[in-house]
Amino acid sequence: MGRYDLALIGFGGVNRALAELISQRGERLADELGFALRVVAITDLRAGSLVDTDGIDLAPLLAAEPGELSFADLPGGSAETRNENVIREVAADIVVEATFTNPGDGEPALSHVRWALEAGKHVCTTNKGPVAVAGRELKELAERHGVSFEFEGSVLSGTPVLRTARRMFGGLEITGVQGIMNGTSNYVLGRLEEGVELPEAIAQAQELGYAEADPTADIEGHDVQLKAVILANEVLGADLRREDVVCEGISQITPRDAQDALGKGLRWKLVGSATRQADGTVTARVAPVALPAHHPLAGISGPGNAVSFHTDLLGTVTVSGPGAGRTETAYALLSDIIAIHQRHHAHDDTTPVRRALKEAPRG
Amino acid sequence: MGRYDLALIGFGGVNRALAELISQRGERLADELGFALRVVAITDLRAGSLVDTDGIDLAPLLAAEPGELSFADLPGGSAETRNENVIREVAADIVVEATFTNPGDGEPALSHVRWALEAGKHVCTTNKGPVAVAGRELKELAERHGVSFEFEGSVLSGTPVLRTARRMFGGLEITGVQGIMNGTSNYVLGRLEEGVELPEAIAQAQELGYAEADPTADIEGHDVQLKAVILANEVLGADLRREDVVCEGISQITPRDAQDALGKGLRWKLVGSATRQADGTVTARVAPVALPAHHPLAGISGPGNAVSFHTDLLGTVTVSGPGAGRTETAYALLSDIIAIHQRHHAHDDTTPVRRALKEAPRG
Repeated sequence: MGRYDLALIGFGGVNRALAELISQRGERLADELGFALRVVAITDLRAGSLVDTDGIDLAPLLAAEPGELSFADLPGGSAETRNENVIREVAADIVVEATFTNPGDGEPALSHVRWALEAGKHVCTTNKGPVAVAGRELKELAERHGVSFEFEGSVLSGTPVLRTARRMFGGLEITGVQGIMNGTSNYVLGRLEEGVELPEAIAQAQELGYAEADPTADIEGHDVQLKAVILANEVLGADLRREDVVCEGISQITPRDAQDALGKGLRWKLVGSATRQADGTVTARVAPVALPAHHPLAGISGPGNAVSFHTDLLGTVTVSGPGAGRTETAYALLSDIIAIHQRHHAHDDTTPVRRALKEAPRG
Repeated sequence: MGRYDLALIGFGGVNRALAELISQRGERLADELGFALRVVAITDLRAGSLVDTDGIDLAPLLAAEPGELSFADLPGGSAETRNENVIREVAADIVVEATFTNPGDGEPALSHVRWALEAGKHVCTTNKGPVAVAGRELKELAERHGVSFEFEGSVLSGTPVLRTARRMFGGLEITGVQGIMNGTSNYVLGRLEEGVELPEAIAQAQELGYAEADPTADIEGHDVQLKAVILANEVLGADLRREDVVCEGISQITPRDAQDALGKGLRWKLVGSATRQADGTVTARVAPVALPAHHPLAGISGPGNAVSFHTDLLGTVTVSGPGAGRTETAYALLSDIIAIHQRHHAHDDTTPVRRALKEAPRG
C-alpha cells in the first residue's frame, strides 16, 4: 500500500480536525482508500514548527489545548513558524494549507501555495484567498510541475461543489451558477424574518458560533464575493477578480422587509451568482434577492449553504450541505487528497480490463 | 479519437432524445469528451429493428413522427423487434437499454441487460426494473465479462445521485439516504396544500404531463419503492428486494391534512428512505412524512426531486434536480457512457505525470 506524507501549514481548527481524522481513523481510511496518511511537518503561527520525517505522533498534540500548544520543546520542534523552509525543504508529498484568508492579496497563503508547487509538491487548501486571487496562475504552476492544486473546501467546506461541477456534468453546458454561500448571513436573514433586529440577530449568530468576532465580511457579502469569483472562474472558465464582482450585503434589509416578503411568499437570501452572458462573457455579483418559494435556494434555512447549477440539458441541479465547520472543512481536504491519489496513482486498481477503442476519423 | 458504437434498445422518448443529442451535437461532444458516438442498431416494440454497422443515419428517423416510425422498409430494417439477436450479435460496444419498467420481474429489460453483458458489451440503462430486481447479479455478470453496467438514470433521471454517492464521499460513511423521488406525487401534495382534492390534483398532474395514464404507481409509492431498493443496495451496500420495503402512498392524505400541517410549519412529503441500523443491517421504507420547514427535503416543490445523504463527517448533503423528462433522462445515459469511457479507456490523457508512491507497511 502507498502512503502520502503531509505537511500541515496552519494548525487551527481545520488542520487539527484533519489530524484527528488521521489519528483516529487512519487505518480504516487506508483500508478503504488504498493509501496511508502520515504527517511529517506542522507549522503554526502560534505553536511554531515541528518536523519529523519518520512521522509525527499526533496523539499528544491533539491532547493539548489548542491555545497551549508549543512545538519549541519537542524533538524536531522550533518556536519559529519557518513556513517557507518547511514547505520548500521537508520531504512531503502534499502540502495542506489551512491558514487564514486575506481577501486582498491572498497572503500569506498565496506564497505558501506557490512555494509548495514550485517544490513539486501537491497542494490542497481550504483557503479562498489564493484561489480567488491567483487561481489560474497557481493551476498553471501546478501543471508545469506535474502536481495537483486542489481546493474543494474554498466553497461550502466539504460539500462537493467544485468537484460536482468538474465531474458530474460532462457533455452538458453550465450556463450559470448561484448560491447561498455564507451561513452567518443566511441565519441572520432567517432571524429578521422572525422580527429580530439585525444587531441582535448577529449577536445570536456569534453566540451559536456561526459568525466571526467581526461579522463585516459575512454581512456585507465580501466572503460570498470571493466564492463568486471562484465559481465564475472554476465553473464557467472566466478570469474574474474580486473587484469585477459587484457586491451588496444584507445590512440594509430590515425585519419589516423580510416579513413583508414572507407574506408575499418570498424569502430574502444573499445570493452570489455567476452567469454566462449571450456574448460569452461571464459576469458575477453578490446581492440580496427575494426568491419565490419554489426557487431551489429559497428553502435553504439557518446556517445552511447551497449552490445551484443552471444547465442546458438538466435544467437546474442544486447541491446543499454544510458551508462551514471544523470536521466538515477537514473533510474537504481529505476529498482533495483522494482526488490527488486518483489523478496520479490510482489507475491500475480501478481498471479491471482495457479493451481496444476503435479509431474513428476526427469529424 | 476513439468511438463507441451503440445499440439502442427501445426507441421511445428517452433513447430518441439520446439520438437527438448524438445527431445534433455529436461533434461538439466528441471535441469535449474525446470520443465519438455512433448508433449501429435500434430496436423498438412498434418500429421493429434496424441495423447498420457503418452507422445509422439518425436524421430521417428523428424527422418522422414517433408513432409513424417503421424500420421494415429501410435497408437493414425489419418489422420484427429481434431484441435478443441484435443485442447478442450486432457488433456494438455499448447496449443502451431504455424499454419500459416491469416492477415485478424486471422483464424484458432484465433479459436485455443479461444478454448484452454475456456478450461482453457494456450496458447503460435508465430502467429501474433490472437494477432493483437483480442489480447485484448484473454487476457481478458485468465484472466477469470485463465490462460496465451503469444505471444513473434509474434514480432521478440525469440528476447525479448514484454517482455522487459513489464518487463524492470517499473516506466518510453514509449512514442513511432519504429522498423525494417521484415528481407526480410531490406535485399532487403541493396541490393538496392549496386545497385541491386528490382526483383533481392527479388530473392536473396528468394534464401537465407529470403523471402516467394510470397514476397508481406514483400515488401508491410503488415507483419510489423500487428507487428505495436501488438506494439501499447501491449506496448502503444492502441486498434488499422490493418486498423488503414497506410501502405506503399518499392516497390517504386529504387537503385538510396537508393544510393543517402547513399551518404548523410542516409539509407532507412522500419520502423513500434507506437507513443503516445500529446492528449494521439496512432497512428501507416508503411513507408520507410531515417534514419541518428546515428539513432539506421540505422545500422541494412541484415536480422537483431530491435525495439527501446522511453522513458521519459532513452531516446531511442533498442533491436536488429533475426526476424525469426525455432529455434529462437521456443525459443520464450520456453520463453513463462517459463513466464507461473513464473507467476503461481514458486513463492516459488524464494523467500528466505519475510519481512513485512510497511503500508503507500495511497497518
